[in-house]
Amino acid sequence: MIVITSNQTPEERVQEIIAVIEKEGLQTHVSRGKDRTVIGLIGQIEPKLAEHLRQMKDVENVIKISKSYKLASRDFHPENTVINIGDVKIGGGDLVVMGGPCAVESPEQIDEIARLVKAAGGQVLRGGAFKPRTGPYSFQGVGVEGLVMMAEAGKKHDLLTITEVMTPEYVDVCAEYADILQVGTRNMQNFDLLRKLGTCGKPVLLKRGFSSTYDEFLNAAEYILAGGNPNVMLCERGIRTFETYTRNTLDLSAIPVLQNLSHLPVISDPSHGTGRRELVEPMTKASVAAGADGLIIEMHTDPDNSMTGDGVQSLFPDQFAALLQDLEKLAPLVGKRFDTPKAVQI
Amino acid sequence: MIVITSNQTPEERVQEIIAVIEKEGLQTHVSRGKDRTVIGLIGQIEPKLAEHLRQMKDVENVIKISKSYKLASRDFHPENTVINIGDVKIGGGDLVVMGGPCAVESPEQIDEIARLVKAAGGQVLRGGAFKPRTGPYSFQGVGVEGLVMMAEAGKKHDLLTITEVMTPEYVDVCAEYADILQVGTRNMQNFDLLRKLGTCGKPVLLKRGFSSTYDEFLNAAEYILAGGNPNVMLCERGIRTFETYTRNTLDLSAIPVLQNLSHLPVISDPSHGTGRRELVEPMTKASVAAGADGLIIEMHTDPDNSMTGDGVQSLFPDQFAALLQDLEKLAPLVGKRFDTPKAVQI
Amino acid sequence: MIVITSNQTPEERVQEIIAVIEKEGLQTHVSRGKDRTVIGLIGQIEPKLAEHLRQMKDVENVIKISKSYKLASRDFHPENTVINIGDVKIGGGDLVVMGGPCAVESPEQIDEIARLVKAAGGQVLRGGAFKPRTGPYSFQGVGVEGLVMMAEAGKKHDLLTITEVMTPEYVDVCAEYADILQVGTRNMQNFDLLRKLGTCGKPVLLKRGFSSTYDEFLNAAEYILAGGNPNVMLCERGIRTFETYTRNTLDLSAIPVLQNLSHLPVISDPSHGTGRRELVEPMTKASVAAGADGLIIEMHTDPDNSMTGDGVQSLFPDQFAALLQDLEKLAPLVGKRFDTPKAVQI
Amino acid sequence: MIVITSNQTPEERVQEIIAVIEKEGLQTHVSRGKDRTVIGLIGQIEPKLAEHLRQMKDVENVIKISKSYKLASRDFHPENTVINIGDVKIGGGDLVVMGGPCAVESPEQIDEIARLVKAAGGQVLRGGAFKPRTGPYSFQGVGVEGLVMMAEAGKKHDLLTITEVMTPEYVDVCAEYADILQVGTRNMQNFDLLRKLGTCGKPVLLKRGFSSTYDEFLNAAEYILAGGNPNVMLCERGIRTFETYTRNTLDLSAIPVLQNLSHLPVISDPSHGTGRRELVEPMTKASVAAGADGLIIEMHTDPDNSMTGDGVQSLFPDQFAALLQDLEKLAPLVGKRFDTPKAVQI
Repeated sequence: MIVITSNQTPEERVQEIIAVIEKEGLQTHVSRGKDRTVIGLIGQIEPKLAEHLRQMKDVENVIKISKSYKLASRDFHPENTVINIGDVKIGGGDLVVMGGPCAVESPEQIDEIARLVKAAGGQVLRGGAFKPRTGPYSFQGVGVEGLVMMAEAGKKHDLLTITEVMTPEYVDVCAEYADILQVGTRNMQNFDLLRKLGTCGKPVLLKRGFSSTYDEFLNAAEYILAGGNPNVMLCERGIRTFETYTRNTLDLSAIPVLQNLSHLPVISDPSHGTGRRELVEPMTKASVAAGADGLIIEMHTDPDNSMTGDGVQSLFPDQFAALLQDLEKLAPLVGKRFDTPKAVQI
Repeated sequence: MIVITSNQTPEERVQEIIAVIEKEGLQTHVSRGKDRTVIGLIGQIEPKLAEHLRQMKDVENVIKISKSYKLASRDFHPENTVINIGDVKIGGGDLVVMGGPCAVESPEQIDEIARLVKAAGGQVLRGGAFKPRTGPYSFQGVGVEGLVMMAEAGKKHDLLTITEVMTPEYVDVCAEYADILQVGTRNMQNFDLLRKLGTCGKPVLLKRGFSSTYDEFLNAAEYILAGGNPNVMLCERGIRTFETYTRNTLDLSAIPVLQNLSHLPVISDPSHGTGRRELVEPMTKASVAAGADGLIIEMHTDPDNSMTGDGVQSLFPDQFAALLQDLEKLAPLVGKRFDTPKAVQI
Repeated sequence: MIVITSNQTPEERVQEIIAVIEKEGLQTHVSRGKDRTVIGLIGQIEPKLAEHLRQMKDVENVIKISKSYKLASRDFHPENTVINIGDVKIGGGDLVVMGGPCAVESPEQIDEIARLVKAAGGQVLRGGAFKPRTGPYSFQGVGVEGLVMMAEAGKKHDLLTITEVMTPEYVDVCAEYADILQVGTRNMQNFDLLRKLGTCGKPVLLKRGFSSTYDEFLNAAEYILAGGNPNVMLCERGIRTFETYTRNTLDLSAIPVLQNLSHLPVISDPSHGTGRRELVEPMTKASVAAGADGLIIEMHTDPDNSMTGDGVQSLFPDQFAALLQDLEKLAPLVGKRFDTPKAVQI
Repeated sequence: MIVITSNQTPEERVQEIIAVIEKEGLQTHVSRGKDRTVIGLIGQIEPKLAEHLRQMKDVENVIKISKSYKLASRDFHPENTVINIGDVKIGGGDLVVMGGPCAVESPEQIDEIARLVKAAGGQVLRGGAFKPRTGPYSFQGVGVEGLVMMAEAGKKHDLLTITEVMTPEYVDVCAEYADILQVGTRNMQNFDLLRKLGTCGKPVLLKRGFSSTYDEFLNAAEYILAGGNPNVMLCERGIRTFETYTRNTLDLSAIPVLQNLSHLPVISDPSHGTGRRELVEPMTKASVAAGADGLIIEMHTDPDNSMTGDGVQSLFPDQFAALLQDLEKLAPLVGKRFDTPKAVQI
């Protein structure tokens, strides 16, 4: 860490700042430049100290050289994390495809979609039982019943399941029914939820906040890891920019960046990342080419009538199946494995 | 609401869309243009229908003409909402100043700061007992004890109190000790929290999500209003932009815009909105000139040693007092009332 | 186009608005809704009329249904534009790779890099003779001499050349020496430059403004097309967002979106789009998977000593050659052709 | 300046980096930390060196401590710049109001508006003869004739004039007719234009690029100053954010920030900064309260029929006059002087 002061700062004041640092058992190196004096800190720095220094009088800037997260950092864990759930391995070279509707609507709907996901080659069934909605008058999900419907469909068709959990009090019930718990973009910094997920015993897919930096994203993951849960997947799902033609701007650079900074698997969500059905195919392929460890894709048998209005970004089953066939060819070119069933029946 | 289709959409398909709309008891007007066919909807439109139409095949776009929130809208409530808490009226022409530290640290700290807020002319004491922090290793607040300390300081110095509540399970205890509950920027779309606040019986200050539009902001307020709580203040606290010199970009246009769209009082937070002490004074004055109903300002007796690191944006007590003296002169020029005590003692 | 007024607008005022529209020879359809009255316009609408209506009293909003650009739109030109330059076809299914240094530095430098671009399989040599720089004290390019050096290197190694032109007065000299003229991101709305390029007789690669929407981008292309130059390539090169880890956020959704909206070829620039060498490879592959018609990639023999400081995003020659070998396998999976020479010698 | 390398960088490589620095006559201080090695540079650093170091292998980051602009910096020029034009002083404590239409349309229009600006208390007449437009089919201004019309109206009503210049070749003719030359937001980084303005002999109002940082803005000003023209005003006119309700987000923090970093006068443009007439009044007052040295405000006698479509953000003459009366009371509260004529006649 580096502390910067103006060169007009009196020497005694600089010495006070140095005293604060050395009291914490750290060493300092001072460089007096033409316009600025720079104090370098050496040793293990507590976040509290950075905060303290930042607000001291005469301190112009405090620049962190090391990262504020540890468990999520590749520096501390050079090997890729591989999450094993049943036969599925996430982060170890297999490409994982999670497919399904935005929301669980009925036992028939989720059963039929599960069948199609499996037939196309997907390994995980996605579906929301609790839906975060911008306005209070929109459909909010079918609730716990939806968890039951999805668990049954997953079991019947030999698929893992993933569902979103929105609040700490529902973590236990979601963990009872689903194989993977998802944190939505609006909850990336719902710290009580993150803490609860640190002890839930199930893998977590953490979606990037729609205006969160990579650093904030990895700090949010750190909350879960620090709670004792090592099985966290990072999911890029689009960020908010000035462009409004797409629902979000899918930031595919996040995939290699997060894989460089962290050892956690990185999943891409081209459905929410674009918000438009016609862009899901090219952006899925682009995600794989950029190195994604997996995908989470919306697919619906009747998108015109989906209950959440997200049908506009859902693939039709035949589009989903055709896309997965293409991924089977594309994956090996970037060092990934992905197989679709020999005979796909839709 | 307007539904747009390509002029290459077959007539029978247009008729299907119309049938869906008329089935809901609405009337339609169809305009066939050169490139597009436009279907206008007349009547009370449910959100579900908009969602359904948006995802129908051949529908290029659905444009809402009316707003998706009702209780928060000035259309439905032309008079300003005035929130009465004890002797303090918020939204009725009095300028309200909320001051205090980022976090409650000790009984002595909060008592001394309360004394200074009161002496300077503030009406509300702010202070966090639970702190949302980007990383898990940062100071997270002193917890329930902090609520007790602040309540005592507020009572002793005849100030209302406001504190942040981060999770539904803490709403009750916060409501027991504080006069106003604050929702932080990261929780603006924590819908379970909003729902719980709809029934908490205390006024709520809702901070704008740092990347939320006015429309999303008013929809979040709608969650609280729809739960039965009419006493909501909207707080502009800066948005995230490409500019990194300031912590956030304080969007002062939000003040007149929200006052036009809604009847709820609008508060400005120049401390978080800028993140730099030297900008708090000019941006406080600018907020008042733009029509703000109130301000929430960080002030600390020892900002160099604040426990959260937010001291960098906290005013010193003498700066705070001088600023409020200036507001006394400025307020009447924009039709507001604000008085400081005749003899200020610091 | 649609004009929206409040339902409290007096009928006579609505009639005045309609009269303005019908005076232009257009038909109108009026829908009177619960809260708003909507006037639909039918016929060929001049931009001037939209502007006029937008500012009329009582008009709440004017919504364009059709696009403001014509020549750039796929609606008016359903077939892909294919730009033929010598043996190279851009936009017709061949993947085009443009490689080279940020700036031309010396005859030896550009000659050696041209040799390497050609050997790796590239078709176009890129290099800047005039450099736009944020500050006036940075290296500004070697000027016209650089054009000569690059033209010679291109000729010798059988490569087309592309170079940036920054101001209308240099269009002629750039067009004399280079095969393709490039408009930089800061000049996307330098309208005099665009107009001049409309008559320059050479193909133009137009970079997206770093904060420009797709609509503004296509309108900028329209300036060049309207001047009589049909050979325009659109180049996505990253947009400015809140994320600062990467130099820009490369918006790969732009590739399929622009190809849907327009018939013009779309090129991706992963070098400027990320600003980091280690991201160029994955984002190049992602660009191709998303459907790009071509790539423009920085490569330098001695990036540590490049004169612009952009070496940090330049590939080393061996990385460039290896990447193009990978593209040869990837291209056919997305319907593109790309061949590298049988024996690559570096 | 600071250069950061990993602590895994071999010592000999660190010595190479140091040798590069010391060859330029600079001193270095090296701090070896736990994860990173930091090299501090002392002495006058050329931009070229920073660029070189940034791209050297093993260099993780180069952090500038000093600023890249000099002439624009308050560090090098502690006193406020005061621009004197005739009797008008800009930046010296007088509040300057520039008012007028978006575009000059006819001699009668500009004469009548000039009369109203003068009567209300404005000191400068604004009006565009050349208009930058997003699309090629929109009204592009009346050209040189408009300069003549505006010069005559200014002279007759004793007002200074300001007009936008879009391209280097028009600088001379604009400088012949207008008292102040304006650089529009899209041209903030049109470096050839900036260089030409450095020698034009007239004061320049430089608008902030709609996605430019403060640092880029001041570097753009540096181009003009470095050319020998000391009379530059900085104009905040709104930045592009995710919010679309307003045309731009007027960043009022820019006013005190730029006044801290620089000695140049700062002007606010609430018309373009909001794009909505009803927001111009509150944001003008907020600008003054934030410390603006001047304002540039659109006013039109017939905004319903303005030729550019910007009428939607133009004040009516009576609104303009009333606002200036309010500014007369507000200005002294923030240490500024502003007087309106004793008897306003409209």
